[in-house]
Amino acid sequence: MQLIEGKKIAEQIKNEIAAEVEEILAQGGRRPHLAGVLVGHDGGSESYMASKVKTCEQCGFKSSLLRFDETITQNELIAAIQGLNNDDGVDGFIVQLPLPRHINEQAVIEAIDPRKDVDGFHPINVGRMSIGLPCFKPATPSGIMMLLERYNIETRGKHCVVLGRSNIVGKPIATMLMQKGNPGNCTVTVCHSATPNIKELCQQADIIVAAIGKPCFVTADMVREGAVIIDVGTTRVDDPTRERGWRLCGDVDFDNVAPKCSFITPVPGGVGPMTIVTLMHNTLLAAKKQVYP
Amino acid sequence: MQLIEGKKIAEQIKNEIAAEVEEILAQGGRRPHLAGVLVGHDGGSESYMASKVKTCEQCGFKSSLLRFDETITQNELIAAIQGLNNDDGVDGFIVQLPLPRHINEQAVIEAIDPRKDVDGFHPINVGRMSIGLPCFKPATPSGIMMLLERYNIETRGKHCVVLGRSNIVGKPIATMLMQKGNPGNCTVTVCHSATPNIKELCQQADIIVAAIGKPCFVTADMVREGAVIIDVGTTRVDDPTRERGWRLCGDVDFDNVAPKCSFITPVPGGVGPMTIVTLMHNTLLAAKKQVYP
Repeated sequence: MQLIEGKKIAEQIKNEIAAEVEEILAQGGRRPHLAGVLVGHDGGSESYMASKVKTCEQCGFKSSLLRFDETITQNELIAAIQGLNNDDGVDGFIVQLPLPRHINEQAVIEAIDPRKDVDGFHPINVGRMSIGLPCFKPATPSGIMMLLERYNIETRGKHCVVLGRSNIVGKPIATMLMQKGNPGNCTVTVCHSATPNIKELCQQADIIVAAIGKPCFVTADMVREGAVIIDVGTTRVDDPTRERGWRLCGDVDFDNVAPKCSFITPVPGGVGPMTIVTLMHNTLLAAKKQVYP
Repeated sequence: MQLIEGKKIAEQIKNEIAAEVEEILAQGGRRPHLAGVLVGHDGGSESYMASKVKTCEQCGFKSSLLRFDETITQNELIAAIQGLNNDDGVDGFIVQLPLPRHINEQAVIEAIDPRKDVDGFHPINVGRMSIGLPCFKPATPSGIMMLLERYNIETRGKHCVVLGRSNIVGKPIATMLMQKGNPGNCTVTVCHSATPNIKELCQQADIIVAAIGKPCFVTADMVREGAVIIDVGTTRVDDPTRERGWRLCGDVDFDNVAPKCSFITPVPGGVGPMTIVTLMHNTLLAAKKQVYP
């Protein structure tokens, strides 16, 4: 069994990006610039945004943060987004979700210029990904694809069972894995809350991507010998042995599943650290105008 | 075994649409108006367009056809599309594909206002469908969904195996069948040219959607008793017993598969007739501004 060390790969990729930024600067170019929009003071959003800012520094990016009070109106927020759309100094930007309830998230996402939508949430990017055209791809599934690539995991003709049909993980990873390409060319099965026989389907899988948010859902009896396990789950479960009283638990019963696998991602330190890195990768692509000329 | 009579259902839906148009007119509204853009004189394109015009008449729609010589430049074609985008008298329009080789089809598709894109090919409509937002859905998979609905075929929790990953059938029908909804909520497996064990996967299927364009590919040994078979294939095969020398053949070996099925679509007369009808349905939705207010 080989551990897929997302944390280590994420560090490698950050260094590769930083080296490329140095090269851009050496050739007279300017630093890639990622802007973030943060509304309100949600603790989770604050800490996500802080780590994005920190990762920008590690990659040699310029970052800027637009903060708004949670009383901002939708029109004011969209006006701010249009400002970023029109600012030639900003290569890409993200709007940290969730937004306050009085704001229509979808309207905000659709106000982002798709050419700067480094989160890959705009319908144009979602559609272009499905069609197989150049686009910004969402962070978590892109991170999974990078891990498969870095570990030279064969995907062609393999049967991948995806647990979960969310818009940010399940559906896009299914699309990416079934596309022609490498990684790609998988036979893909998507299971979800209405699937009655998840166990039997998982038992047939060469690759399982678990993204349903149920701690330890994938047990050893569901996994066949030699399978590749990608665990996207990150649920906080009580743990009195930890000082903070909880630990992060994946969707996979790691201790019992790992011995049967060829490859497995741990939680934490597997898929999680790749998410921010793929955001940085998208920002670099935006700065280089590599997706949309 | 029950035959899914697409041709009959298509007639029903045309009559329903025509009745709704009468009601719109009675209330002082105007006829829905579908425009078509035809470049060159390809025989297949000519006949597709002619049957779309004829179906418009049956539905009580106004139709208009813009014809261009195959020497038209991409810029001229896009200018014509912008004219249709800006024409308040046109509810929806289609550009008949394929286009001459000197024209970038994707650029032309993306020039269409998504609110008038009744073919559902614009990336915004593809993306919105994937996300589960209101959109124009592509004709063939929509037609399949209508057939499942009209025949009250249970899809929730059923395992659907889709053969083919094309942008116009395989990928969108997979997306539609896995979404929450009815029809929908299927476990979906997408197989394609890189899948080594299509037979074994089909044997597990409650529903098979065959869209790979290989005549008689799905044989009786691949189908379990009681399965639902949707055949999207339409390949011309030589048939000296017919006066014209050929017949249409589906992806399914109908004669041997049909006795095992609960439901099956014939070829011709199954999925095919639904395709134009869903285009009419989309045009009606466009006229009523039901997708994009």
